[in-house]
Amino acid sequence: MKTSYQQIAEGILYTDQYQLTMAQLYYRMGLHEKQVQFDHFFRNYPDYDLHQAGYCINAGLEWLLDWMAEARFRDQDLEYLRDRKGQTGNAIFSEDFIQWLKKNGTFDGIHMKAVPEGRVVHPNIPLTVIRGPLAMAQILESPLLNQLNYQTLIATKASRIRDCGTNQLLLEFGLRRAQDRGANAGARAALIGGADFSSNVGISHVLGYPPQGTHAHSMVQVMIALGGSELDAFRTYAEIYPDDCLLLVDTINTLESGIPNAIKVFEELKRKGHHAIGIRLDSGDLAHLSIQAAKMLNEAGFKGTRIVLSNQLDELVIWQILSQIRKEAPRYGLDAEKLINRLVYGVGTRLITSGGSPALDGVYKLTAVRDAGKWKPAIKISESLDKIPNPGHKNVWRIYDLRDKATADLIGIEDEDLHHMDPLTLHHPIVHTTYRSLGQNQISHIEPLLVDVLDEGKLVYDLPSIDEMRVRRIADLERLDPGVRRIMNPHIYHVSLTPKLWELKQSLINSSSEDNPTIERKKSI
Amino acid sequence: MKTSYQQIAEGILYTDQYQLTMAQLYYRMGLHEKQVQFDHFFRNYPDYDLHQAGYCINAGLEWLLDWMAEARFRDQDLEYLRDRKGQTGNAIFSEDFIQWLKKNGTFDGIHMKAVPEGRVVHPNIPLTVIRGPLAMAQILESPLLNQLNYQTLIATKASRIRDCGTNQLLLEFGLRRAQDRGANAGARAALIGGADFSSNVGISHVLGYPPQGTHAHSMVQVMIALGGSELDAFRTYAEIYPDDCLLLVDTINTLESGIPNAIKVFEELKRKGHHAIGIRLDSGDLAHLSIQAAKMLNEAGFKGTRIVLSNQLDELVIWQILSQIRKEAPRYGLDAEKLINRLVYGVGTRLITSGGSPALDGVYKLTAVRDAGKWKPAIKISESLDKIPNPGHKNVWRIYDLRDKATADLIGIEDEDLHHMDPLTLHHPIVHTTYRSLGQNQISHIEPLLVDVLDEGKLVYDLPSIDEMRVRRIADLERLDPGVRRIMNPHIYHVSLTPKLWELKQSLINSSSEDNPTIERKKSI
Repeated sequence: MKTSYQQIAEGILYTDQYQLTMAQLYYRMGLHEKQVQFDHFFRNYPDYDLHQAGYCINAGLEWLLDWMAEARFRDQDLEYLRDRKGQTGNAIFSEDFIQWLKKNGTFDGIHMKAVPEGRVVHPNIPLTVIRGPLAMAQILESPLLNQLNYQTLIATKASRIRDCGTNQLLLEFGLRRAQDRGANAGARAALIGGADFSSNVGISHVLGYPPQGTHAHSMVQVMIALGGSELDAFRTYAEIYPDDCLLLVDTINTLESGIPNAIKVFEELKRKGHHAIGIRLDSGDLAHLSIQAAKMLNEAGFKGTRIVLSNQLDELVIWQILSQIRKEAPRYGLDAEKLINRLVYGVGTRLITSGGSPALDGVYKLTAVRDAGKWKPAIKISESLDKIPNPGHKNVWRIYDLRDKATADLIGIEDEDLHHMDPLTLHHPIVHTTYRSLGQNQISHIEPLLVDVLDEGKLVYDLPSIDEMRVRRIADLERLDPGVRRIMNPHIYHVSLTPKLWELKQSLINSSSEDNPTIERKKSI
Repeated sequence: MKTSYQQIAEGILYTDQYQLTMAQLYYRMGLHEKQVQFDHFFRNYPDYDLHQAGYCINAGLEWLLDWMAEARFRDQDLEYLRDRKGQTGNAIFSEDFIQWLKKNGTFDGIHMKAVPEGRVVHPNIPLTVIRGPLAMAQILESPLLNQLNYQTLIATKASRIRDCGTNQLLLEFGLRRAQDRGANAGARAALIGGADFSSNVGISHVLGYPPQGTHAHSMVQVMIALGGSELDAFRTYAEIYPDDCLLLVDTINTLESGIPNAIKVFEELKRKGHHAIGIRLDSGDLAHLSIQAAKMLNEAGFKGTRIVLSNQLDELVIWQILSQIRKEAPRYGLDAEKLINRLVYGVGTRLITSGGSPALDGVYKLTAVRDAGKWKPAIKISESLDKIPNPGHKNVWRIYDLRDKATADLIGIEDEDLHHMDPLTLHHPIVHTTYRSLGQNQISHIEPLLVDVLDEGKLVYDLPSIDEMRVRRIADLERLDPGVRRIMNPHIYHVSLTPKLWELKQSLINSSSEDNPTIERKKSI
């Protein structure tokens, strides 16, 4: 796309058509400036092929705020809307609505609460709560979901990979397999979720992380095509980057050519007073090859050099590689943990696409309407009880037990004071008869999760740096039960309702059912 | 991301770090302006869960060309490179290289041949062939793959969905589940591959397709929250959009509330001289509900109204829905094909993410180097024979049989004249003993697939409109054997080599093996 078109394609019209037709309908009915609340949350953890995540990492908020701050209906956007014709050739949008958009079509009236980026989050927790005029809150739905769903998905995948890789250095390599410019959002989310660096230069620049990368097979190939050898290629690389020498050793034959040649070059560097960084393995049995590489490097006196692994990695592949190393390394006289400590993971496709689960099911649901000066909780009845959003103004707390582990997230009415409830009752969100009681003496700490972000469109929150988000993520992960962090078949974390919210929800469901007898019928099947 | 950062994050630095470190290495060696050729191709069709595609639809070229035309090293990009430090604090990029980038760091020296967008393509066919100075051709790798892989992936998925849906109207709905701004590239590719419209307003504007969409559940919900009913919501919608009235009928209960209310409103519209467009079903058993909806609409005299289906659709789900309709509709006294003809598909997540196969494995490989005034084919030896790219300057032809069906794609040496070979021998790309012979009397037409696109960076090709690409795609699909179009377990299309290319490849493999005895060893295992 020509960059001159980006202003149109990525501005306020970066939304779905039905948001605009609904906004005009609200305008016609005089409802466009009625105050409403929408909650953004996801319903299910990503489910990667056969195994489902036990937690997610929240991400994407800052870029959404950047977009909201700049988005407005400019003349070219309005001109386009003016030209839209319906089936019979009539204008879809009327001039008075267009004039209203020109004057009021910004997010300046929006209040937002949100869970900060980098935090561990769970299904059905309101991650972003929007209050504001109906028309603009409605138009915000698509761009909000577009920007928050993806970054949360990728931060989650990165966190799992990081965790499985026993916290060794993790590099994001996915530019070539991303959805076009989505690569940049993906790189940012990967950094929040646990990647240390990205290979993508531009976004690394913008985010202040040095991009990483050395050379590809093509460099060795060019040398060979010009009559040289792999060793020539390595020597040249070492000459130009003597202190940053990391060599890709599998262009010809890893064990018989690549590693021996790399060792020769490392020895030459050493004689000149430089320290080689290491080697990269990009094909073959990475577990077996790392063991052999470590053995050869150790024997040559390069015990500290890094071994970078790449090629279709993800959390499961890394887990299998580490299991195999732990089993086999001792047979070759190697300390498995020492070997694992020198590994670095370069993860491309399966990180940037969230391999196995390429979309998060985040939604944006109306939960309250201000009518005649009073906020009224709104409910959407669904045939599946677990799809009925929690109504009204709410708050969310994380409850820590005496081990300082998070034991549940609790959703309640906004002004509830949990500290005065003893015991605290945690209702299962759907099953009427299931609840837990926690005495205050079993609780070390009750932490509210939502912070105020926008007040009438004005930022009232200090946006954390990515480094601060990473610190936050690590702290949250440490306070998760190990069973919840497990990558396969994790223990299900409790997301519960307070008795007050539970009762509000039931009474709204019941009164909706009275108005609509068909609902009652459906529920009783 | 703030739009002010986009120029950095999406400009020439939208590449991987190793492309820049390799470019500097080539510069140091005096090889940076050496002419080389890189081929872009994919190795495998997307493999969606259990079934693999039998063809792909090429897409993404025009946006890549837009990017290349604008990308250059501006002062802010160079300033950033100047600041990059290695492990020991030394500058990674030297000033003379930075000055070279400032002066020569554009794609003005690039020659490009490519297969046009919208065409049916197959593995190992060079889709894009780049010739130009080594340093810039190398830097191009990541942005080229990023932009071409994704659009080809999505155009392919859209084409399959379109084909399974027996060519009924297809709407792209995926904005909220895309990888951030990748949504726009995805919408474009979906249009090329067979979607008729997108719900995404901005990109529809840029591409000249009217965006589609009516209303969401939230509209009905707002009305109910304010004391109204579903019927009130539908009436209001019909009042404001009397000629574009498409109603979402599953907010409360599809059969007992939504459709009866929609019919009431359609009758009111009819009395006022308007034609209702139809209804949308977004949950439940879509096959069963379409039959019931059609029956109810028919009985009320609305035989022509559309029935839009949405909710986790993809080619297999649509196929199953149509099978079920064909089996069950007659039991309700309905003509299944008439019902199918009024369906419209709204496809979100599984189109924009290419559900089941979220990345295409497109690669970019060095295939020739100009040395001492002569082009030399380059080869990359791999332990897997099917990963060795076809070397040198090549051409690609599609061979049509007497039924005018494409029977094979043939890769040969650039200047070969196939018309003079009788019979034409089609070598299996790997298996030495397998080949086909086609007499010229068995061939109706031989069509070259590559066109000249860039000559020294200058566009020498008339870019087709998306409508033209769609026409091209339909024509190509019609000339595919039905077995190749099949969505599950398709017949494998032949991609073959001419005897001359086959021999060139073998001789290069053999001479590489002589230089590198380890390769020979590997091959003989």
